[in-house]
Amino acid sequence: MIKITLPDGSIKEFESGITAMEVAKSISEGLARNVISASFNGETIETATPLTTDGSLVLYTWRDDEGKKAFWHSTSHVLAQALEELYPGVKLTIGPAIDNGFYYDVDLGERSISDKDFKKIEDKMLEIARGKYDYNMRAVSKAEALDFYKEQGNEYKVELIENLEDGTITFCDHSSFTDLCRGGHIPNTGMIKAVKVMSVAGAYWRGDENNKQLTRVYGISFPKQKELKEYLELLEEAKKRDHRKLGKELELFTFSQKVGQGLPLWLPKGAALRERLENFLKKAQKKAGYEQVVSPHIGNKDLYVTSGHYAKYGEDSFQPINTPAEGEEFLLKPMNCPHHCEIYNSRPWSYRELPKRFAEFGTVYRYEQSGELHGLTRVRGFTQDDAHIFCTPDQLDQEFKNVIDLVLYVFGSLGFEDFTAQVSLRDPEKPEKYIGDAENWEKAEQAIIKAANEKGLNYVVETGEAAFYGPKLDFMVKDALNRSWQLGTIQVDYNLPDRFDLHYKGSDNELHRPVMIHRAPFGSMERFVAILLEHTGGNFPLWLMPEQATILSLSEKYENYAKKVLNLLENHEIRALVDNRNETIGRKIREAEMNKIPFMLIVGEQEALDGTISVRKHGGEDIGTITVDAFAKVVDEEINKTLKPFNV
Amino acid sequence: MIKITLPDGSIKEFESGITAMEVAKSISEGLARNVISASFNGETIETATPLTTDGSLVLYTWRDDEGKKAFWHSTSHVLAQALEELYPGVKLTIGPAIDNGFYYDVDLGERSISDKDFKKIEDKMLEIARGKYDYNMRAVSKAEALDFYKEQGNEYKVELIENLEDGTITFCDHSSFTDLCRGGHIPNTGMIKAVKVMSVAGAYWRGDENNKQLTRVYGISFPKQKELKEYLELLEEAKKRDHRKLGKELELFTFSQKVGQGLPLWLPKGAALRERLENFLKKAQKKAGYEQVVSPHIGNKDLYVTSGHYAKYGEDSFQPINTPAEGEEFLLKPMNCPHHCEIYNSRPWSYRELPKRFAEFGTVYRYEQSGELHGLTRVRGFTQDDAHIFCTPDQLDQEFKNVIDLVLYVFGSLGFEDFTAQVSLRDPEKPEKYIGDAENWEKAEQAIIKAANEKGLNYVVETGEAAFYGPKLDFMVKDALNRSWQLGTIQVDYNLPDRFDLHYKGSDNELHRPVMIHRAPFGSMERFVAILLEHTGGNFPLWLMPEQATILSLSEKYENYAKKVLNLLENHEIRALVDNRNETIGRKIREAEMNKIPFMLIVGEQEALDGTISVRKHGGEDIGTITVDAFAKVVDEEINKTLKPFNV
Repeated sequence: MIKITLPDGSIKEFESGITAMEVAKSISEGLARNVISASFNGETIETATPLTTDGSLVLYTWRDDEGKKAFWHSTSHVLAQALEELYPGVKLTIGPAIDNGFYYDVDLGERSISDKDFKKIEDKMLEIARGKYDYNMRAVSKAEALDFYKEQGNEYKVELIENLEDGTITFCDHSSFTDLCRGGHIPNTGMIKAVKVMSVAGAYWRGDENNKQLTRVYGISFPKQKELKEYLELLEEAKKRDHRKLGKELELFTFSQKVGQGLPLWLPKGAALRERLENFLKKAQKKAGYEQVVSPHIGNKDLYVTSGHYAKYGEDSFQPINTPAEGEEFLLKPMNCPHHCEIYNSRPWSYRELPKRFAEFGTVYRYEQSGELHGLTRVRGFTQDDAHIFCTPDQLDQEFKNVIDLVLYVFGSLGFEDFTAQVSLRDPEKPEKYIGDAENWEKAEQAIIKAANEKGLNYVVETGEAAFYGPKLDFMVKDALNRSWQLGTIQVDYNLPDRFDLHYKGSDNELHRPVMIHRAPFGSMERFVAILLEHTGGNFPLWLMPEQATILSLSEKYENYAKKVLNLLENHEIRALVDNRNETIGRKIREAEMNKIPFMLIVGEQEALDGTISVRKHGGEDIGTITVDAFAKVVDEEINKTLKPFNV
Repeated sequence: MIKITLPDGSIKEFESGITAMEVAKSISEGLARNVISASFNGETIETATPLTTDGSLVLYTWRDDEGKKAFWHSTSHVLAQALEELYPGVKLTIGPAIDNGFYYDVDLGERSISDKDFKKIEDKMLEIARGKYDYNMRAVSKAEALDFYKEQGNEYKVELIENLEDGTITFCDHSSFTDLCRGGHIPNTGMIKAVKVMSVAGAYWRGDENNKQLTRVYGISFPKQKELKEYLELLEEAKKRDHRKLGKELELFTFSQKVGQGLPLWLPKGAALRERLENFLKKAQKKAGYEQVVSPHIGNKDLYVTSGHYAKYGEDSFQPINTPAEGEEFLLKPMNCPHHCEIYNSRPWSYRELPKRFAEFGTVYRYEQSGELHGLTRVRGFTQDDAHIFCTPDQLDQEFKNVIDLVLYVFGSLGFEDFTAQVSLRDPEKPEKYIGDAENWEKAEQAIIKAANEKGLNYVVETGEAAFYGPKLDFMVKDALNRSWQLGTIQVDYNLPDRFDLHYKGSDNELHRPVMIHRAPFGSMERFVAILLEHTGGNFPLWLMPEQATILSLSEKYENYAKKVLNLLENHEIRALVDNRNETIGRKIREAEMNKIPFMLIVGEQEALDGTISVRKHGGEDIGTITVDAFAKVVDEEINKTLKPFNV
């Protein structure tokens, strides 16, 4: 008998030789139907692998990332078999699962695959899948394995096997097909109900451009046809909402190779949008008692040695800036906190004056490998909506809760309704990863958990995810495509106040150490705008829209009236354009729809006579013919639906 | 006979051996009375030196910098003589004229000088001056000169003489006093009517801290007692208005050695003041058709090689930033123009879309030696109120004139009434100092002069003062102390458009090169705020004041009413404080006066009953007892006196 521990902590006894699938069946038939892969003592196994020792068993279904990985890895075998049948003599190389599906790199000789061939390949794959072939692992000797592929004339697999150590070589068979494989499969091919060949691309053998170029075939598969359909729709929608594409179309930002990769240039419409976001937050922060400060984008290297940032980031980030004389060394600032500590330190404080809340839209610079850069979500320079609160230990709880209120206000005003919170704590088993003493860490972690509880936040706790200087509360929002993004962050810090020797005079007339809170509701302006773009597809909340309305004249005769309307709108601080082109009104409306303009204001003979405008909403709703003043009220009401004043 | 050319170009003949003073007399007795020094063929001479060859003669009076220099140099001889008489055995070293006066470094042995001795020294100097002793130059041999000082035991002068070449050694005698001297004196000591010993300080012989420390005595002198009095008053006022002192008192900005010298940290009140200035300019710029953009604070080194900035500044400024991988090199940006060129280059333009006016409050970094740093006027990082206008050659004149209008509007709104303009052109004899071809320079220079003339500006032309990339129009304002400061600048640039290969499609459907205008009405936020502080002494225009009013309660009983008044003021967007302390109203008023608060709002029993406030202006004027609404009108009217809307 062996003892099997399940993820819920329960321990069951089975006869030695039982398989993961049999364990699943012993729990329930329903579970057994859904199990697609398993791991034992942390190692991936087949669901048919006999278990012969005590150990921990995890059973995976399609809902688990591990399950999907096994599913897609298994499908790559089917793809390989299909290619062998359709392209006799094709040489297989490697075919792993990836985040969304799988690929297989193959040498087709003189032949090639184009999108015209995809249907044929998919049909062949489904034909194989329908055979419900089991995946069977078997160990082979190195010599056997080499012989197998030498006979096929497949120099790639031969090279792979030659680099493997003896004794760990396994093949996987299904149907008439065999592949060199480490394992981790679904029970049989019959579970694969939907497949899609996504694309083909060139890929060098082993990623080395001196080697032969192979054909990489990308695919994805699902246990249900419906899931494939939903995935393809989501993909189509995500492509439309890609912030890089929308950013270009809406003329919000650009990049220049000459300026440097990962360094965004904000175009006028983007800079104005960003300024509206900043002013919105500034207004709320002013109400909440924050004060703006301004600090430089560099600092003496010693500043970051003091703060601990140099030890953490120094060698992996932008290197020090030398001076032509005097031997000084400066660093591009990776964080604003050391500067704000020095601002705090510029004068003495009494407990009566705390909390001090210093806010700055501070641009920081951190080096990222060029391959890691991605639009506005992964850049080398970004502006944090940063603030540091210096308070007494007694004030910490209330201040932390106030920051949660501010973050929730920001999310609400931007239309992010669905969010979760994550409390990130230190990994107590790896103290070397963190600075500061254990007692302060304990206090800070408890303060965060207490505030999250009191505010009734729906949160998860992640051990080992804290910043190196303190624990934090992060906010994850779900966008319109149900994707999760990390936005706002609130962090407690007992360490920098020590390192910068900050103090205040208490009611006892003695000097005490303040506590620091770091916080950024948006996170960074770059990342936030990117996520907002993907969330809204460019249909921002009305108060943020680059253009809120466009005036469409029925003919050039009404040009002067259109301009008069524009002036009236400007008096109401409504951002509008005029389209006086000699085009049909139908075409003007179509273009305004494409450009996502929220309101179309049509003006012709009757409107000019009556001093009115005919208002049509983006999407087609007809608001009717009204005065500009009445329209201004419509705009105000629409804005007030999302943008409410912040009440402290 | 010799031919003497005078500065007006006239040539006169005189007998050989005539002196500068005799030439002055030949022109007019009045001139002769005012002449205090002279130069001949570019070399400083004595007014009594016989002229024996043809040449150009310039006669200097007290109004010339050269005249002042001779005056103060001559007075340093008198100081030396006075010290010899008062401190027998004192060893003289060197005693030059400086920007404001002169100093003499002396070795007093065991003795010292303190401010208690200043009067005694001044009296002795005036006694000598009244002797009306002529300054007489005489040539001496090196041996003679060495003997003279060896006999005195003055090792300093001996060292100086040993380092001189034979044959050019001169002594200057007046009264019984002799000094080693190169020349350049006023006719006689009688012209020195007022002297002041300003301070004493330690100074190492030859500036080397391994040498003996000497006593440096600073002094200044004037031809009239009244001028000394005015100078001392100005100095007193300038000390009060020193922006470093006021910036600290008003809590506007600070510096931190840890962050780095020359890198200002803007405190809440300063950051808010700066933001008001920025918003003021943004508003005017929006009306004038500018669009805000945002660019990073670094750029690839190649960007600045392309722009020419690297060749000009590279080695003397902050050194390149290396990356931990990929071998990229970045520079802290010394200017925003290359980034704005790349923004322009991010899409094609039609002539119909020009001018494009990209504005950014862009922070730039330039290395300065620590000894050159001075408060906010000379820093290592500063924010330019920068903009670049890209226009067709046809649009240049009008755009340039529009910028002049904007600059004049800015000066007017900030209370700088007295300004002059300077047109800075290239030095045609030093083409190696400039980039770009001569034809473009000529066009750009003519455009500036034309615009300055059409706008009726009072300007001077300075040849050789252009930027290396183009000519410019600078605005010099006089502050309340009559000191001149360079503020706004407008520059025409035909060079960067070439270097960045900028173009637009003309009405002829061909590609053309746009012209660029660089402009910054404030110059930089740091420098502008410093000058505004010194100009206003902290009494900013009302719309800029950190606090516009303070509510002074007659006793703690009226605390609630004071708070109510504060809320009403906030609704009117008037920035106010409450002073509810248990202090006499007299003391509260005195402190508000000291803190330069423009309006004091006194509230007591009667005001609380009537719902009014008793308004007192900074300086003492009584406005009377009025409602908050009426007071808001007073504030509005006061603001509107300087801050008018910008009309394009």
